[in-house]
Amino acid sequence: MKRRDFIKTSALTTVGAISVPNILTASQKAKYSWKIALTWPQNMGIFVDSAVNFAKNVEVMSGGTITIRVDAAEKHKAPLNIFDLVRGGQYEMGHSASYYWKGKESSTVFFTSVPFGMTAQEQNAWFYFGGGMELMDEVYAKHGLYSFNGGNTTNQMGGWFKKEIKSIEDLKGLKMRIPGFAGEVLARVGASPVNIAPGELYTALERGTIDALEWVGPALDIKMGFQKIAPYYYTGWHEPASEMQFLINRKKFDSLPNELKEILKSAMLNSSFMMLNQSQHENAVVWDSMKKEYPNIEIKTFPKEVIEAIKKATLEAYEEESSKNPMFKKVYNSQKEYISKAREWTKISDLAYLNSLE
Amino acid sequence: MKRRDFIKTSALTTVGAISVPNILTASQKAKYSWKIALTWPQNMGIFVDSAVNFAKNVEVMSGGTITIRVDAAEKHKAPLNIFDLVRGGQYEMGHSASYYWKGKESSTVFFTSVPFGMTAQEQNAWFYFGGGMELMDEVYAKHGLYSFNGGNTTNQMGGWFKKEIKSIEDLKGLKMRIPGFAGEVLARVGASPVNIAPGELYTALERGTIDALEWVGPALDIKMGFQKIAPYYYTGWHEPASEMQFLINRKKFDSLPNELKEILKSAMLNSSFMMLNQSQHENAVVWDSMKKEYPNIEIKTFPKEVIEAIKKATLEAYEEESSKNPMFKKVYNSQKEYISKAREWTKISDLAYLNSLE
Repeated sequence: MKRRDFIKTSALTTVGAISVPNILTASQKAKYSWKIALTWPQNMGIFVDSAVNFAKNVEVMSGGTITIRVDAAEKHKAPLNIFDLVRGGQYEMGHSASYYWKGKESSTVFFTSVPFGMTAQEQNAWFYFGGGMELMDEVYAKHGLYSFNGGNTTNQMGGWFKKEIKSIEDLKGLKMRIPGFAGEVLARVGASPVNIAPGELYTALERGTIDALEWVGPALDIKMGFQKIAPYYYTGWHEPASEMQFLINRKKFDSLPNELKEILKSAMLNSSFMMLNQSQHENAVVWDSMKKEYPNIEIKTFPKEVIEAIKKATLEAYEEESSKNPMFKKVYNSQKEYISKAREWTKISDLAYLNSLE
Repeated sequence: MKRRDFIKTSALTTVGAISVPNILTASQKAKYSWKIALTWPQNMGIFVDSAVNFAKNVEVMSGGTITIRVDAAEKHKAPLNIFDLVRGGQYEMGHSASYYWKGKESSTVFFTSVPFGMTAQEQNAWFYFGGGMELMDEVYAKHGLYSFNGGNTTNQMGGWFKKEIKSIEDLKGLKMRIPGFAGEVLARVGASPVNIAPGELYTALERGTIDALEWVGPALDIKMGFQKIAPYYYTGWHEPASEMQFLINRKKFDSLPNELKEILKSAMLNSSFMMLNQSQHENAVVWDSMKKEYPNIEIKTFPKEVIEAIKKATLEAYEEESSKNPMFKKVYNSQKEYISKAREWTKISDLAYLNSLE
């Protein structure tokens, strides 16, 4: 289960080879040879591991009846086109994040994470016991797809800032790389969200082309080096628990025997859980060493006034989209109702416990 | 995945019947017929569901090659003897909580939850990426057992109190039903922990035989009725994330083919994840209705002085046991080191996020 073990044994893009030698004799052949396309390039550690672990788990459980080749983005060259690759049947499966399909279906954002949304523990309860899975199926079924959860990043950091944000005035005109829905929200309070390719982010921040940016969290941020050029590391608000998803071509899945359907579903559930655990672990370990190596990093949280202003802008954006799109409204209302109960429990359980120790 | 679905189709103590009709034809017979003994009586909802879901998942994934009959406590009549039932081979498997075997191995407490320990998210990261699983295996292997996680209760409430606890003086002489390690800790600061059978708890609290008690959390507490007779509901400190465990007879597991081993392990991992989700859900939903129906319940957290005193007593107890028992020391040190990193990440991620909204 340790990442090390996978790194040792895995050969990306031919991951099918990992476990097959243990299972199939020379005369045997897998009855189902599937392929999964990832949004992620090979160096996206935790994200790639989730799909690799899934494929290996499925192969071993099925005794080699089904093999799943894992293709990282370098192979298929269509990282943000997984939806169509799987719908069209070029790949039986994909591993990506639901909110990348916002342009096709705005409601898909709720299956990843939304500004001021739920924590991972609250969100998983919503998915499996609060009607979330049924809603996700309703959204994806009409595109000929199944969508199952595929792993969580844990709470994402608010990003790296060159100047401290002391009031809502400090957001006015702020040039920040923050894509998607969160960028739209910041634009509503006067910021200037921009999109810049990952490879150019460091230089853009260093030269002042942008004033701030958000990436993921310590485990992935550290490789980008932002801690060397921006002293303020803000806590999160915009993606409190980003969940990845597996996509499956509906016809291909329906044609499998019951045992293999159950094996695939169980392996995806395992991957979702284990990526959450791995994210928690790697963020904790990397943050521990990052703050020792860069003691000048200042952890900041937006002041109350700023939080309230961007939360108000967020709710306005939700209401506007709800009035235009019935499916968005349906999922939004489900989460809104669920979070009101889930958060009250969080407050008297984990939150009260953690705060009692401070 | 919804509990409703399991209730509809499950017949406890003969749960083997749930899915077999869908899989086996009249002429087929399961190659492995296993039994699992639960510590829980049939009415322990979430706990029983975890084992039932596991058995069903295994049967469907294996195409009926293995069936697992689920026996609740009413059947085997040895709820706190699961360890021996599985070690002796009367049952291939058990579902229980590691800390019940404290008398045999004091280190087992760390695999359930300990006072001032980790949250569920932190603890799962420790189990799967911080060396926890390896340590648990080291503890159980010498007894001929495998131990795998089997579900979390989420943060347990500190209990129901008839009087408010305003200072450490208020704990002196307090008669409280709080078993295990937490009871020992309270005794160190002057309280009088007592053990009372579950069926007599309500009357004992009502008549003043005890001043306080702890049970689990809203989802399970509500059936006991304590909210009618004790106004103060304290937030937790003693079991921040109680994890249940599956036990397996080591020889029986080792004799299985690789596919079935992987299927069992994957199904246990699923159960662990899904019980956490179900606990989060049911606690949230029940707490929502409980506080509406009993608006006089007052949520309280021990004052800082009290938290500090019981934390000090806890650490002393850990150190004392560590000096006597090398395995206890080894697991304690592993958790102590891990929590220091894990908690720093929690503080700047979920905790900072949740507090920014208050």
